[in-house]
Amino acid sequence: MLSREALRWNGWGRLGEGLGLGPAREEAVLAELGGRFGRPLARGLDPVELEGLALPAPRLDGRTLGRLRAACGDEWVRTSDLERVSHSLGRSLPDLLRLRSGDLPPPCDAVVYPGDEGSVAAVLRIACDSGFAVVPVGGGTSVVGGIEPRPRASQRGAIALDTTRMDALLRVDATSRTAVVQAGIDGPALEARLRTHGFTLGHFPQSFEHSTVGGWIAARSSGQFSGRYGGLEDLLAAVRVVTPSGVLRTLEVPRSAAGPDLRALVLGSEGTLGVIVEATLRVAPVPAAHDERAMLFRCFEAGAEAVREAVQSGVPAAMLRLSDAAETELFEVLRRDPVRRFDVAAAVLEGAARLGYGEGRAVLLYAQEGDADEVRRDMARLRAIGRRHGGLPLGRRPGRSWRRDRFRTPYLRDWLLDAEVAVDTLETALPWSRLEGAHRGILRDLRAALAAHAGAGLAMAHLSHSYADGASLYFTVVYPLDPRRAVKQWAEIKREATDSVLGHGGTLSHHHGVGLDHGAWMAREKGAVGLEALRAVKERVDPAGVMNPGKLWTAG
Amino acid sequence: MLSREALRWNGWGRLGEGLGLGPAREEAVLAELGGRFGRPLARGLDPVELEGLALPAPRLDGRTLGRLRAACGDEWVRTSDLERVSHSLGRSLPDLLRLRSGDLPPPCDAVVYPGDEGSVAAVLRIACDSGFAVVPVGGGTSVVGGIEPRPRASQRGAIALDTTRMDALLRVDATSRTAVVQAGIDGPALEARLRTHGFTLGHFPQSFEHSTVGGWIAARSSGQFSGRYGGLEDLLAAVRVVTPSGVLRTLEVPRSAAGPDLRALVLGSEGTLGVIVEATLRVAPVPAAHDERAMLFRCFEAGAEAVREAVQSGVPAAMLRLSDAAETELFEVLRRDPVRRFDVAAAVLEGAARLGYGEGRAVLLYAQEGDADEVRRDMARLRAIGRRHGGLPLGRRPGRSWRRDRFRTPYLRDWLLDAEVAVDTLETALPWSRLEGAHRGILRDLRAALAAHAGAGLAMAHLSHSYADGASLYFTVVYPLDPRRAVKQWAEIKREATDSVLGHGGTLSHHHGVGLDHGAWMAREKGAVGLEALRAVKERVDPAGVMNPGKLWTAG
Repeated sequence: MLSREALRWNGWGRLGEGLGLGPAREEAVLAELGGRFGRPLARGLDPVELEGLALPAPRLDGRTLGRLRAACGDEWVRTSDLERVSHSLGRSLPDLLRLRSGDLPPPCDAVVYPGDEGSVAAVLRIACDSGFAVVPVGGGTSVVGGIEPRPRASQRGAIALDTTRMDALLRVDATSRTAVVQAGIDGPALEARLRTHGFTLGHFPQSFEHSTVGGWIAARSSGQFSGRYGGLEDLLAAVRVVTPSGVLRTLEVPRSAAGPDLRALVLGSEGTLGVIVEATLRVAPVPAAHDERAMLFRCFEAGAEAVREAVQSGVPAAMLRLSDAAETELFEVLRRDPVRRFDVAAAVLEGAARLGYGEGRAVLLYAQEGDADEVRRDMARLRAIGRRHGGLPLGRRPGRSWRRDRFRTPYLRDWLLDAEVAVDTLETALPWSRLEGAHRGILRDLRAALAAHAGAGLAMAHLSHSYADGASLYFTVVYPLDPRRAVKQWAEIKREATDSVLGHGGTLSHHHGVGLDHGAWMAREKGAVGLEALRAVKERVDPAGVMNPGKLWTAG
Repeated sequence: MLSREALRWNGWGRLGEGLGLGPAREEAVLAELGGRFGRPLARGLDPVELEGLALPAPRLDGRTLGRLRAACGDEWVRTSDLERVSHSLGRSLPDLLRLRSGDLPPPCDAVVYPGDEGSVAAVLRIACDSGFAVVPVGGGTSVVGGIEPRPRASQRGAIALDTTRMDALLRVDATSRTAVVQAGIDGPALEARLRTHGFTLGHFPQSFEHSTVGGWIAARSSGQFSGRYGGLEDLLAAVRVVTPSGVLRTLEVPRSAAGPDLRALVLGSEGTLGVIVEATLRVAPVPAAHDERAMLFRCFEAGAEAVREAVQSGVPAAMLRLSDAAETELFEVLRRDPVRRFDVAAAVLEGAARLGYGEGRAVLLYAQEGDADEVRRDMARLRAIGRRHGGLPLGRRPGRSWRRDRFRTPYLRDWLLDAEVAVDTLETALPWSRLEGAHRGILRDLRAALAAHAGAGLAMAHLSHSYADGASLYFTVVYPLDPRRAVKQWAEIKREATDSVLGHGGTLSHHHGVGLDHGAWMAREKGAVGLEALRAVKERVDPAGVMNPGKLWTAG
């Protein structure tokens, strides 16, 4: 099972791992950002120590504690500071800000690790009886406040239900290409076990190394290679959820017209209906080959047209990831090594600039995996489409470095925070016809928000998930944080950013979810009737309001 | 808009159209079936005339009628026998039996044709105020009792809300490849108007000529070319539904993780939540080429393995339709023309029999459309896979005749009913690993049910929609009906058939839906918690229970 001890309690990922730019490059990056922000940046802001946190005492009475221990086993009910903190905040920017400052919201009162479906049901009963909320936690990597306990006023506190003890691969049906897993299995364990059967799920969200199948389902996740494997709505064949009213389960069938599809109520439910305990997943053979390459476009719009042509003409690609000019430029800042004598990539870019790939240039990473022939054919077709739109092939080097660092970019945020530089991301999806206008408009609004609330800052975006009818846009903002009011500053920027996304016709989220951070906008997203329909399901299935209160919508 | 006057009131399709076997072939088919059933069959059972029906008087009071007329326009509120009957029964076997015998269930009290969203909302308000149920009706081709009025005991009657006046193509977004349509548009009108923009929806259910977009959404439809274009869950980008609580609408975005996907609550809702008034559909360019061919396998299992390999290895096909031995044989009976001197197809089959494609032989129809190159390549790959599984190519002739008659096979039922021969169909979907066992087991149970309740009968199946993890099975039964108790006889066979489908791990329906006929099994299909979740949505959105009562589950 996923080991919490190996993870940072107040930052991204594993202890001892990081982005690894090295001191000289880090120095150069900070100098560059300091220049942009008009103020010098220096490393040295120390976060508080775990021991320095003054957590409120757990509000669990002896009888409840005893019942939880009887349900899960003595060693599987934990109340240490590390356990409580790790299970109460996710990995959003405001989470990191609060973890580092020590100014925490009330954490959960205990963490339980049930070992099976019966124990999960018992925990829900106990919580209901004793007036506690239950927050299901998988890897705990939510970037929208998905696991932060917000017990109702009528509740005494919250219990985090960690699913990671339930991490078995139960069955593989090689004929139907499905695998039944317990939902607490994490990405690397799932892939390793599927691989012994010759299969992969092909789901690689950025959080892959530290997140679970149950979390992916609850958040309606989509991964880096969704172009080939699909999002969770495509990968999930059937699901089993322990709710306070009993087990919600769907049939293991490839399609049905027997009424509305209940999988869709579970996908994106973010722990508000119950605990996802089991999933039947559609798997694929482990690909024999893969290839990742880059191409440079004169502008984002030309690249976006190439991506649209590729996806609309049905040319298969696992990934089509197009950075806009600002992101392409920041990548170059991050990549440049001031110590290196001869910089091949810089020389290539200089040459490209002379060919007209200058200021507005946008880099596309495109990837495919599968049989060697398939990969060769698809990559050639993608390159041909790119060239028709003025794309300049940059070869495999940028692709290799993307693949190497694909799960490591989140580490970047932590060392930038040390220098009082904040990084936040938001993402949306739009129809193609509105994509370019929204890209420009949202960037403009983000820059205005950064100027207003941080005095400076960078805003950039990439297009990462494409469909015949539209694509996702993933925005990143980098700004100097105001340490005296860092969370408030974030909230102000976030509010304007989210208003802008909806104002441009985008959805609140392409794959991050809702959690606490987007709840206030859900009535606009879903409409009053739509939101009422979701509330009705919640109230019927969880009449006592035990399951992850306050998520998906405000005041619920 | 769809013209009811041109349609048969008590049978399939258009007046003056039919399957057109011709007298000699019809005679031969009846002789063959009579032989199988062990009793002579003769045409000549006359259905009752429309004028002979004694419908109960409409229960609409003058005030309600006046309000409906004010809402829809005087000429758009109708109470003629033809209107009431056409909007109260679908096209299932028990529907046809009752229409022909004249022993009808209570029909709707009036038919209204609102012209816009505001009028729809007004009709729902009037119905609510005056104690009537509302049944949304598109083409009215349900084969599961989806439009039969079943007002609650507390209601005075039912109003059929015909959507077909709302049939505009509102917008085409060529860049995003989407089209916004009013939901009352029928298949041929939709395709004709999309075609002027160079697009097709590619959705061709058997009812295509007489069904509407709203009906397709409400029933979670899937068409003959779903392998290329997908089912309604793939084609529907956004939807707008007038419910008694207001408008339920989803955003026009390609994907979202902002909570559960509300489209999935509307897809398969069968009119129980509201009236689907508008849909954003994903369209595709009109294909330049198409090709349909047939291949013969020594047995159904070999063909199924070929289909599985094709779909799992990602070889694109618009259609892969594999008939089992019994269906292949019946096709041959229907095809044979006793008058023709030299029968090419019969000669081919005789030759095939000498090559070992004898008694158990199973015919596969496979089709693709798209660019000419694409079609050529995909068809060649499909043929190669088929040959690896022992398939014998039969060329284009059977494909051409399938295409010609693709929307005409339902006409078959009517002239067989004239000879007291009943045809019923049911369909399901299963994982590949359970498909062959279920095929054998369900056929065995169907034959036992036919023997018990009809003394004889034929049962057969085809596989028509394939997915990486499984496929649909579509069963047809043909049996001598007992005219004294025809509906009861059907119900007995239906009950055993449905128990068998669920007992073999299949879903209640792959694409026909639930309606009245499958309601009693919905607790088994969805589980108690799942069904409660759906009921909760229904009760919140339609607290007075106005919308299509009694559908999707019994006693609702």
